[in-house]
Amino acid sequence: MRVLVLNGPNLGRLGSREPEVYGSSSYGDLVTRCQQWARDLSLDVEVRQTDDEAELVRWIHEAADSATPVVLNPAAFTHYSYALRDACVQLRAVLVEVHITNPSAREVFRHTSVISSVATGTIAGFGLNSYRLALQAVAAVAADQPGN
Amino acid sequence: MRVLVLNGPNLGRLGSREPEVYGSSSYGDLVTRCQQWARDLSLDVEVRQTDDEAELVRWIHEAADSATPVVLNPAAFTHYSYALRDACVQLRAVLVEVHITNPSAREVFRHTSVISSVATGTIAGFGLNSYRLALQAVAAVAADQPGN
Amino acid sequence: MRVLVLNGPNLGRLGSREPEVYGSSSYGDLVTRCQQWARDLSLDVEVRQTDDEAELVRWIHEAADSATPVVLNPAAFTHYSYALRDACVQLRAVLVEVHITNPSAREVFRHTSVISSVATGTIAGFGLNSYRLALQAVAAVAADQPGN
Amino acid sequence: MRVLVLNGPNLGRLGSREPEVYGSSSYGDLVTRCQQWARDLSLDVEVRQTDDEAELVRWIHEAADSATPVVLNPAAFTHYSYALRDACVQLRAVLVEVHITNPSAREVFRHTSVISSVATGTIAGFGLNSYRLALQAVAAVAADQPGN
Amino acid sequence: MRVLVLNGPNLGRLGSREPEVYGSSSYGDLVTRCQQWARDLSLDVEVRQTDDEAELVRWIHEAADSATPVVLNPAAFTHYSYALRDACVQLRAVLVEVHITNPSAREVFRHTSVISSVATGTIAGFGLNSYRLALQAVAAVAADQPGN
Amino acid sequence: MRVLVLNGPNLGRLGSREPEVYGSSSYGDLVTRCQQWARDLSLDVEVRQTDDEAELVRWIHEAADSATPVVLNPAAFTHYSYALRDACVQLRAVLVEVHITNPSAREVFRHTSVISSVATGTIAGFGLNSYRLALQAVAAVAADQPGN
Amino acid sequence: MRVLVLNGPNLGRLGSREPEVYGSSSYGDLVTRCQQWARDLSLDVEVRQTDDEAELVRWIHEAADSATPVVLNPAAFTHYSYALRDACVQLRAVLVEVHITNPSAREVFRHTSVISSVATGTIAGFGLNSYRLALQAVAAVAADQPGN
Amino acid sequence: MRVLVLNGPNLGRLGSREPEVYGSSSYGDLVTRCQQWARDLSLDVEVRQTDDEAELVRWIHEAADSATPVVLNPAAFTHYSYALRDACVQLRAVLVEVHITNPSAREVFRHTSVISSVATGTIAGFGLNSYRLALQAVAAVAADQPGN
Amino acid sequence: MRVLVLNGPNLGRLGSREPEVYGSSSYGDLVTRCQQWARDLSLDVEVRQTDDEAELVRWIHEAADSATPVVLNPAAFTHYSYALRDACVQLRAVLVEVHITNPSAREVFRHTSVISSVATGTIAGFGLNSYRLALQAVAAVAADQPGN
Amino acid sequence: MRVLVLNGPNLGRLGSREPEVYGSSSYGDLVTRCQQWARDLSLDVEVRQTDDEAELVRWIHEAADSATPVVLNPAAFTHYSYALRDACVQLRAVLVEVHITNPSAREVFRHTSVISSVATGTIAGFGLNSYRLALQAVAAVAADQPGN
Amino acid sequence: MRVLVLNGPNLGRLGSREPEVYGSSSYGDLVTRCQQWARDLSLDVEVRQTDDEAELVRWIHEAADSATPVVLNPAAFTHYSYALRDACVQLRAVLVEVHITNPSAREVFRHTSVISSVATGTIAGFGLNSYRLALQAVAAVAADQPGN
Amino acid sequence: MRVLVLNGPNLGRLGSREPEVYGSSSYGDLVTRCQQWARDLSLDVEVRQTDDEAELVRWIHEAADSATPVVLNPAAFTHYSYALRDACVQLRAVLVEVHITNPSAREVFRHTSVISSVATGTIAGFGLNSYRLALQAVAAVAADQPGN
Repeated sequence: MRVLVLNGPNLGRLGSREPEVYGSSSYGDLVTRCQQWARDLSLDVEVRQTDDEAELVRWIHEAADSATPVVLNPAAFTHYSYALRDACVQLRAVLVEVHITNPSAREVFRHTSVISSVATGTIAGFGLNSYRLALQAVAAVAADQPGN
Repeated sequence: MRVLVLNGPNLGRLGSREPEVYGSSSYGDLVTRCQQWARDLSLDVEVRQTDDEAELVRWIHEAADSATPVVLNPAAFTHYSYALRDACVQLRAVLVEVHITNPSAREVFRHTSVISSVATGTIAGFGLNSYRLALQAVAAVAADQPGN
Repeated sequence: MRVLVLNGPNLGRLGSREPEVYGSSSYGDLVTRCQQWARDLSLDVEVRQTDDEAELVRWIHEAADSATPVVLNPAAFTHYSYALRDACVQLRAVLVEVHITNPSAREVFRHTSVISSVATGTIAGFGLNSYRLALQAVAAVAADQPGN
Repeated sequence: MRVLVLNGPNLGRLGSREPEVYGSSSYGDLVTRCQQWARDLSLDVEVRQTDDEAELVRWIHEAADSATPVVLNPAAFTHYSYALRDACVQLRAVLVEVHITNPSAREVFRHTSVISSVATGTIAGFGLNSYRLALQAVAAVAADQPGN
Repeated sequence: MRVLVLNGPNLGRLGSREPEVYGSSSYGDLVTRCQQWARDLSLDVEVRQTDDEAELVRWIHEAADSATPVVLNPAAFTHYSYALRDACVQLRAVLVEVHITNPSAREVFRHTSVISSVATGTIAGFGLNSYRLALQAVAAVAADQPGN
Repeated sequence: MRVLVLNGPNLGRLGSREPEVYGSSSYGDLVTRCQQWARDLSLDVEVRQTDDEAELVRWIHEAADSATPVVLNPAAFTHYSYALRDACVQLRAVLVEVHITNPSAREVFRHTSVISSVATGTIAGFGLNSYRLALQAVAAVAADQPGN
Repeated sequence: MRVLVLNGPNLGRLGSREPEVYGSSSYGDLVTRCQQWARDLSLDVEVRQTDDEAELVRWIHEAADSATPVVLNPAAFTHYSYALRDACVQLRAVLVEVHITNPSAREVFRHTSVISSVATGTIAGFGLNSYRLALQAVAAVAADQPGN
Repeated sequence: MRVLVLNGPNLGRLGSREPEVYGSSSYGDLVTRCQQWARDLSLDVEVRQTDDEAELVRWIHEAADSATPVVLNPAAFTHYSYALRDACVQLRAVLVEVHITNPSAREVFRHTSVISSVATGTIAGFGLNSYRLALQAVAAVAADQPGN
Repeated sequence: MRVLVLNGPNLGRLGSREPEVYGSSSYGDLVTRCQQWARDLSLDVEVRQTDDEAELVRWIHEAADSATPVVLNPAAFTHYSYALRDACVQLRAVLVEVHITNPSAREVFRHTSVISSVATGTIAGFGLNSYRLALQAVAAVAADQPGN
Repeated sequence: MRVLVLNGPNLGRLGSREPEVYGSSSYGDLVTRCQQWARDLSLDVEVRQTDDEAELVRWIHEAADSATPVVLNPAAFTHYSYALRDACVQLRAVLVEVHITNPSAREVFRHTSVISSVATGTIAGFGLNSYRLALQAVAAVAADQPGN
Repeated sequence: MRVLVLNGPNLGRLGSREPEVYGSSSYGDLVTRCQQWARDLSLDVEVRQTDDEAELVRWIHEAADSATPVVLNPAAFTHYSYALRDACVQLRAVLVEVHITNPSAREVFRHTSVISSVATGTIAGFGLNSYRLALQAVAAVAADQPGN
Repeated sequence: MRVLVLNGPNLGRLGSREPEVYGSSSYGDLVTRCQQWARDLSLDVEVRQTDDEAELVRWIHEAADSATPVVLNPAAFTHYSYALRDACVQLRAVLVEVHITNPSAREVFRHTSVISSVATGTIAGFGLNSYRLALQAVAAVAADQPGN
């Protein structure tokens, strides 16, 4: 099963971006680990990152058209991008919202997500392992569904 | 590694409680599946449920004393039990907040969690699989920590 | 038809508790009057009181399992106990929320009820007669339903 | 004892108005049933309806002058008519606020009542039976008062 | 100079309406005193009262057409009648909002006036004397204006 | 097809009422233009105006009974008349809310409409042309519906 | 009867301060006119102004000790000086809050008065005439009281 | 007269995007119908769509430079794009905000528009016909202006 | 004079619970020190702790029945337990609310106390000494009252 | 050890100021009692009062320079004087905020303190005894600190 | 050109006041540096400081009378002194609001300024250099104005 | 020292965009003046503008990598772009937020900045001179830092 792992703004800066908050692993490390975790779960993963809201919206459209499951770290778009939200509603397979840190333990503006209510579920706070759990969630949901 | 899976009020009613929301599996099914998932992860799990805030607080104290990781579904206590929150702050190992459903897609009062900000992370929306992911999260966090 | 009349915290103190607000009848008087009123309506009533949220939740579970109508005075739990609310949703027969006083005419925190939206209806402000009306409501709703 | 049953805007439309919400009984049915229930309680009831705030205010004045008990379904006026509220304060006998449906389980604007705080009590959610209970409440309060 | 003194809902009940709040003078007394005060100020006053929002709106229209100064006690309409507000904006002469009591010292809902921002000025809290001061205000404003 | 064009409070004052806001055309002009526009669309229009909430509610009832489409300018009632809202819910044909000005560009209290959520759609800001567009909307919706 | 007319911050600047808002009369003009108005009413007036909160508080103390009526324009202190409010509560004679302009028609922060709820009444919006009306209010209240 | 019809994010997905909400017509159908409606009105229309905020802003700049009327469906940008708002302020010809659905009848976040206050007017809720009405509005406004 | 010192949830964990916030003294130390301080004041103190809201409510009932003064550290119940509040209202002797830390200098949710408004007074922020001061307060209030 | 007891606006009026709220003891009584209580505790106390924010700020500066403990009754400044708050932050010894009454049981505006979060602790509600407890608190904190 | 640099409460304490926030330079250093910076800009600067709101208001009056530019650090008055705001409105030359720290990055109450909306502009966050920039701003604005 | 001056959406429209608000200078003028000002300060400035959030984010990344100081006019992004905010946190040199106008004196939505709390400081309200002051701020901060 193919899975898209989509990352929003500033996530390409992992490692150099506030390492005391996001850890010292680079974005390249994240891609590598996701591919490894996907292999372990027999998933075919593609990991992308963009700072561009419109590009992220189009990737969601692509996933909607092909009924591909999505692991989405909306990053800062979490808090205001209704354009992204309206795109996510169109998804036909599972959508897992994922966060490296625990937004509830950070600034007040991070306590609001305009994406959560249209996601299948949310995983937050486990560092890069949040992505591993998200991929496991995709696999688990798929296994529970008839026809998989 | 030992793990406590603690469930709050009304969760003993799984299966008969709003099955269109929480699914048709019973609480007994949940216990069985948690034990199976734990075995797969080489974890030693104990699953408990209570409708009593004080009992849940004491179980958290017990976990704090033994530095045991906790998977906690606070159920309705999520939204108001600062007593439970003050207990959770004392935990020394990982705390995973878990929800069967996606609270963000339900009533407004479920959008507020007084527990999230003191949890390591949160997993919500994947049905009973939320517990499986939570156990995997415990294992993953443990594997990342030196000394494990 | 059997009916459970369930009373929340501090209601066992009727008579001594703020008599200028709640009146001078004791909790024993309330029980006696409920039983008399029930007899007049050919109802088989059981009246209970507890200060313990978990015990009240369990009584609601019991009523849910036996499809028994409930007259509930949640007292202070009215304003914050989502655990009680989540229990009440499971009821299959009528649920009448009852208050001795008129909460709308008292402190602001009493204007909010987390129970009302999951009750069949509410009766408030008639002193002990609120219970009598609640029992009449149970009888009336039952009489309206086919099969009764 | 004479009782005025006063109904606010759109209640003359019972039966054709959102029957899935308000039921299929017509306003004529309501009048007939109120009269029957009143007879059973040895009350002398007069049932009126108006869409006109000023007319409703004048009926309340009439009841205030004659110290007549009032059963009032303020309908939409519940949520904004301070003119009606200021009239109700002048009542010298019991005022029972009554609703066919349970406003707490409907739109947010229906959760606010500007009338409740000046009513003796409130009965809501029991369909047409709400009026029956209201008449019983009038009778019960009267029976409790010395001189009746 | 002609002046209209217009009174909103429940003000025809002065004397019998909450005398501990509004005093024991009747509405007839108010009319008589306004006429006396007007004579002292060489004003030609007409005093009216209605419980009907539409009638009050039409009286304001009449005053707008004839450029007549208005002393308005909007009573409960103060707090919600935007229809009355939109009428008042059309006035071409002075508009004095008047209150017998001091709304700021009463219930919170009385602290909001939708009329004040379109009035020339406001006089509140001096009992029936508020009307006398309002008439004096009309005279004073007129005296200050060239052409009077 | 017959259409009712209903106008709320102060709209009979067009031309003299704040012409810098509402323009210099009179209410008579509005009636004439609506009739001309209706003829062009082969609609049979009746234009009415009232300052009286109850009368407006009754006109809506009339339209509900005859399944007549309604073009409604609720004027100030837009912001608080839940009585009007509850009437509008009963309509069976299209309901077009119309405003001469753009309420979003005016005072904050005009940003809230209690009518919009029960209207088919809204047209605002085009001067008297708003009514022309509303009549075209009625025609367009009718043309889209099978059976027309 | 002696009356204190007390003016808060920036009122000594009348004439030069925002004349398009406050008019072109100087503070000296205000004093002169107050003295003239007082003479007409057989009142013995003393007019003072200060920018200093503590001085204004002490003047209120002085009036409290001598049971002197006070006409108070709190100016900007209206919106935040609880010290002034706590002083005003001590007054034993009438307190008239007065404003030259109509605060309800100006910035939002001017819509809140911490003084109004402890004043006998308020007069606002009549330019310098507000003081004249305030002095008339003092005289009128005094005339109504037995012993005057 | 040339008109730009500009569509925001996710509108290129019409037909496949939530058809139960937006209908089954495709974006291509929308373009075709707009062109047909424009021809009927002797307008020269150009219809564009983008998911990219910056591109939409630039299209507005283009319309501002050429004083071209704009029909704008801002889609999700309606609720947060102040960049789009600041662009729209620069327009010199009419700006019609258009919505296929009725935002007031949907989620709370759709009740806020940051665009409405800078638009000439708004048309919402008539399905694709909203665009037809918008083009008619452009024609009507143009016809009303001297020089057209 | 007998005094009850009652402690709410998590206070039995003193010493191990967040020592950087609550200090390193154990709950046993607290008991010992309270007993010593009581002896110095000739008070007969009983110190209890519970994590159970119902048990705490019952202890308050016991104190109400015997008119015993209470020193109460409600801990997390401070912020939501209206059941505890309703119990406290019944107390006939002094009630001193006590906190080890200064809630005003901590998280926002700790700034709200549902207990304070029904306590005689509050002492917060002095570490374990807060209890000493509370016992001194009990003694001082008693000394001020006739009959002691 | 020297201690400054500083009192804010209107406290010099004790005895004459709202005796039903603040008691009948005069400010002189307060000074005398504080001096007696200080002697009992071997403290060297100086008691001052001012209605002037700037003077109070300067007294705090003086205490900051000499590292003197302060007992502060900010009176009305409690609710808005950020100038006083910014001064208090500079204190190096203990700061005890003290209130004669229990602000939580009074008007809503008294529930907010801008001082509490920068005080060591707060004592409120015990009448003049609040000062005695505050002095005991100063002594107790001093006794706990090494070097005292 | 003469410039007044006015400093509000606690700024005389620079150096000793929270040096980790405000830096270690003393108020004397600030005066010296301002004078040096002014000389470099050919400005004639006078630097003053007061803890007294009334004195600050009077200095603003003085600047208003002489049309002198003002650099104002309102310190804590920033957040509540409407008296100061009403004074600043009277200024005829440039008003630069200046802050040593960045209020937006500190406590929530510092995010609100009642002064900003009446200032020409604001400079915040550059330490003592904020004053240098403010003086440069005064010079730059002056240079842009005809007649300078 | 190199400095990046980055401008957000609609700033390329200077001169034609609301000249009554932003002035008549064009964007080209701004670039020229910034370069001149930079030369005077021996700074090497590069001035850029984009309407594209993602491009602006990438420029911030570039500045973060090279530790280049940034002068940022976020324009409309000021009010909602958390993506831009998360980028700015990564900057290692000074960040000066700059505005041509004074946002505090404009619409309410402009009073909120999501950028200010992560900027070194803010300069607003001085027209194009705001940029000159910002460049001076960069130079001043640099001069204060050891190693420059």
